Amino acid sequence: MKKNKQKIYLDYASTTPAGESVVSAMIPLLQKDFGNPSSLHALGQDALYAIDEARRKVAEFLGAKESEIIFTSSATEADNIALSGVLQKEKKAHVITSVIEHKAVLEPLNSSSAEVTYLPVNKEGVVKVEDVLKEIRENTVLVSIMYANSEIGTIQPIKEIGAAVKRINENRKKKIVFHTDAVQAVNYLPCKVNDLNVDLLTISGHKIYGPKGVGALFIRQGIEISPIFYGAKQERGVRPGTENTAAIVGLSQAVEDLQKNMTEKTEKLRDRIIDTILSEIPQTRLNGSRERRLPNNINISFKGVEGESLLIALDQKGIAVSTGSACASRSLLPSYVLLAIGLSHEEAHGSLRVTLGRMTTEKEVDYFLEQLPLIVERLRKISGK
Amino acid sequence: MKKNKQKIYLDYASTTPAGESVVSAMIPLLQKDFGNPSSLHALGQDALYAIDEARRKVAEFLGAKESEIIFTSSATEADNIALSGVLQKEKKAHVITSVIEHKAVLEPLNSSSAEVTYLPVNKEGVVKVEDVLKEIRENTVLVSIMYANSEIGTIQPIKEIGAAVKRINENRKKKIVFHTDAVQAVNYLPCKVNDLNVDLLTISGHKIYGPKGVGALFIRQGIEISPIFYGAKQERGVRPGTENTAAIVGLSQAVEDLQKNMTEKTEKLRDRIIDTILSEIPQTRLNGSRERRLPNNINISFKGVEGESLLIALDQKGIAVSTGSACASRSLLPSYVLLAIGLSHEEAHGSLRVTLGRMTTEKEVDYFLEQLPLIVERLRKISGK
Repeated sequence: MKKNKQKIYLDYASTTPAGESVVSAMIPLLQKDFGNPSSLHALGQDALYAIDEARRKVAEFLGAKESEIIFTSSATEADNIALSGVLQKEKKAHVITSVIEHKAVLEPLNSSSAEVTYLPVNKEGVVKVEDVLKEIRENTVLVSIMYANSEIGTIQPIKEIGAAVKRINENRKKKIVFHTDAVQAVNYLPCKVNDLNVDLLTISGHKIYGPKGVGALFIRQGIEISPIFYGAKQERGVRPGTENTAAIVGLSQAVEDLQKNMTEKTEKLRDRIIDTILSEIPQTRLNGSRERRLPNNINISFKGVEGESLLIALDQKGIAVSTGSACASRSLLPSYVLLAIGLSHEEAHGSLRVTLGRMTTEKEVDYFLEQLPLIVERLRKISGK
Repeated sequence: MKKNKQKIYLDYASTTPAGESVVSAMIPLLQKDFGNPSSLHALGQDALYAIDEARRKVAEFLGAKESEIIFTSSATEADNIALSGVLQKEKKAHVITSVIEHKAVLEPLNSSSAEVTYLPVNKEGVVKVEDVLKEIRENTVLVSIMYANSEIGTIQPIKEIGAAVKRINENRKKKIVFHTDAVQAVNYLPCKVNDLNVDLLTISGHKIYGPKGVGALFIRQGIEISPIFYGAKQERGVRPGTENTAAIVGLSQAVEDLQKNMTEKTEKLRDRIIDTILSEIPQTRLNGSRERRLPNNINISFKGVEGESLLIALDQKGIAVSTGSACASRSLLPSYVLLAIGLSHEEAHGSLRVTLGRMTTEKEVDYFLEQLPLIVERLRKISGK
């Protein structure tokens, strides 16, 4: 069917393939070591041990205690537990977040009865520390700001926000809890929770070459979190249901495999793509920040071209990219993230997200940069713009 | 370390190993077919197609429409969605359930603001249809009765309860929704939702030789269910978070592999175990029903013996069994299910659950029946009872 057999995946922010070592670590837990961690017999206890060991690895990566790590079925669930878990016990609570958070943060807040302040971002997509501080009220119980944005790759000053909240907490009886969704950051940025000054932090398996269907939530000791649904008392009563041992072990293997030395290579490829597009294709603009940017993120607006048309044309050439977050891809609305940094509806609709990953090669980038200008030119001709 | 290398697993109600075909079906979705089903490019659409196909298989098994199946991260989550999903929209709602439901049903109901009637069961653990009818009130919106109990294997008259509720609904403006947790039933009992007259039905992956971390909920067309947590709009807005494609496909493969012809063979082994224990070991009693019983469930009380001591002694002989549900195994409280059918605390503490599965052989049963009487005798001598 497909003429072009070449397959180039440049959508690593949507999801990543599980690494070989991850799949190898998972398979025994599905088959011979399939015990239920709640069972008292040896097979069950072996499964419990495997989870403990996974918890130790994730805790080590985050510089946290093992007892501070909870495994969940996804980052979405972890975000919901973090937010609703804090808010459920509070009446008339106030929360500060940003307008460009992931839906997994915005939607639970929209659905809660809390007062929510949605902070604006500057044209690069950055939340200002002083804006957070300005909005703190007496009844503020929670601040949730993502570590890095999935669409435009902007990195937030989490460490600085955390430090500022910490200072304010020194003079407050009711402490403010600081949460960050670090899903997009984990592959490239330092994630030690004490350096970041965060109380709650979310990670996802499938964004870091682990399996889908698993996430983890760091909950700083002393912070009480209620479950968002109920059953037996797994995961310290915070997350019920038989533990997904294979996925949990897969996530911990993915964390162990994180290659921090990928950053420089990835940044070089990213900069080459950005520079080439901006210089060789007229009427293009980079969305987000040039400096505070994830090493693997490119987000460009093309005047007079629909992002979806670009995506489909590239797909026909065997190149997989995105127009924004995968989660919103079936929506016809323009990206709320791009609108928030000041793009018009038309500009937002004309945007493309290219995200690099562990397997991305120079050759793949060559091919992409060869095809893209031709496609943009053709689409502009068709639309007459 | 272990002297006895023999490994006999007789705890299939706690969890099952994933079948070869299940693991084979999952691996591609973790690696080469790893796309995010929300991505518009071919890799994403292939993943979406895989989920659609999985949904078709599960729907077919249940005799339901594809649009009536929602995938979740566990049966616990599916039960919570079913119950809270119905109750969230209701004020002053009344729910009817039984005292022997799984924690995944009891705990969300305990945590809800609904009035809940907990129906008693008879000494075999059976809920009476007329007891359900008697408790129906004007504000009754939900009935939730499990298909078969995980501890004592008692099969409930789901079809009859469903038919009775259906008849009552004919004369009600506000229809009563009927939910059943079918987790333990799926391996052996008919599960066509229209025959069962159910509106909501829960299944689990890891109880039917599928992976952990996945469940499914049948939601009859026309029944509105709210999500229990929030994010992007996956699974028709009922269950957010990137779909766990590998586990979903694994679940559907497990459903496809269900071997109904296992029932007779399993029942024979079960009856041999029950008859041998009751006749050869003095002061034993069968818990649950002899007739309305899952083909793979044996639950026996041994006078003067602690269930946990039995479990540990058997484990040392390489035989894995349970004292009750795995989920409650870390609790020191006696089984609420056994208390509900009239056992004393002492009798409940002296109980053992043996559950058979697809891989159980005559030889394994021989060995178990050879070891058990010796162990019981020894433990009784030690305790002097």
